[in-house]
Amino acid sequence: MAETGRTTISSRELGDGLDLTDAQVRKDLAYFGQFGHPGVGYRVPDMVRKLRQVLGTDRNWDMAIVGAGNLGRALASHAGFTMKGFHLVAVFDSDETKVGQPFGDKVVQPIAQMAEHLQRHGIRLAILAVPPEPAQTIADALVAAGVTGILNFAPVRLVVPPNVTVNSVDLAAQLEQIVFRLHDDPLP
Amino acid sequence: MAETGRTTISSRELGDGLDLTDAQVRKDLAYFGQFGHPGVGYRVPDMVRKLRQVLGTDRNWDMAIVGAGNLGRALASHAGFTMKGFHLVAVFDSDETKVGQPFGDKVVQPIAQMAEHLQRHGIRLAILAVPPEPAQTIADALVAAGVTGILNFAPVRLVVPPNVTVNSVDLAAQLEQIVFRLHDDPLP
Repeated sequence: MAETGRTTISSRELGDGLDLTDAQVRKDLAYFGQFGHPGVGYRVPDMVRKLRQVLGTDRNWDMAIVGAGNLGRALASHAGFTMKGFHLVAVFDSDETKVGQPFGDKVVQPIAQMAEHLQRHGIRLAILAVPPEPAQTIADALVAAGVTGILNFAPVRLVVPPNVTVNSVDLAAQLEQIVFRLHDDPLP
Repeated sequence: MAETGRTTISSRELGDGLDLTDAQVRKDLAYFGQFGHPGVGYRVPDMVRKLRQVLGTDRNWDMAIVGAGNLGRALASHAGFTMKGFHLVAVFDSDETKVGQPFGDKVVQPIAQMAEHLQRHGIRLAILAVPPEPAQTIADALVAAGVTGILNFAPVRLVVPPNVTVNSVDLAAQLEQIVFRLHDDPLP
């Protein structure tokens, strides 16, 4: 809305765009304070600023990627990340043939240097783009080095302390959700 | 559980592993019929088979990937897909420099041949790994060619007919969800 120059928006319009009722939109936003103005709706620039504050995306976040394979490279060049203030500051891989290779504007570092690098730079956010086998061990190392947020692409349920946030993107589960609705003969 | 040789499991154990109550586990499973056995719990091999039926993952699904970039390649080599019965049968890209190149055990085909190929082979499942700009146009072409399930990685809200299922993986939103919990000063 901000990009198209709109200055105000109603909870009804927001709800239509989000497949929510207007009442739910008002209730959800009210949870974070006073957003709307009676008879006006929500002021768009105001709301964008406040939502960014709420989400913590009003500032830049340094992040590291572990795993310099195709997925890591795809994530490193993902346009949406830079737009939202996520900056790749380091890449690590255990594969010696990948260490030292260029990776975007970075160079792949050996995983043996990961802990020291993360601590020295105070990096708290990491993307785990590795095979399932080493995922838990690497997650443990990330947490020990001070990382408190992990976006995990390994098809593994990571065990982390309660102060660490893990979001897992299980790609096969995404496909399964789709075919559940495609297939013609659900039980019973 | 099946992999570790377990033969039965209780709703309590399932709930612990899923962060759900045992009552919720029983209720959810009961929705699909009679799964459990009083005093025994759930018989693991039986349950795996029935859940696969419910999810439609007891058979193989042919899928196409549109977009032969890093993300497409990462998805094509994703071990979890093959394990779950998802088989990549075709890859398309609009970039002429990519057309004809090897892509796993497939060859990248021009997007101009996509509709005819999908229809001829009855492919109903597609992964969209393209930039945001062409995503809607390509989704329209997929739907017109008979695709009814799309896993979308473009940061775009796709508009599709009600009979088509879209799951969108918004990678930046995943990171935003994490930093929402990392940052120290939420409103108000």
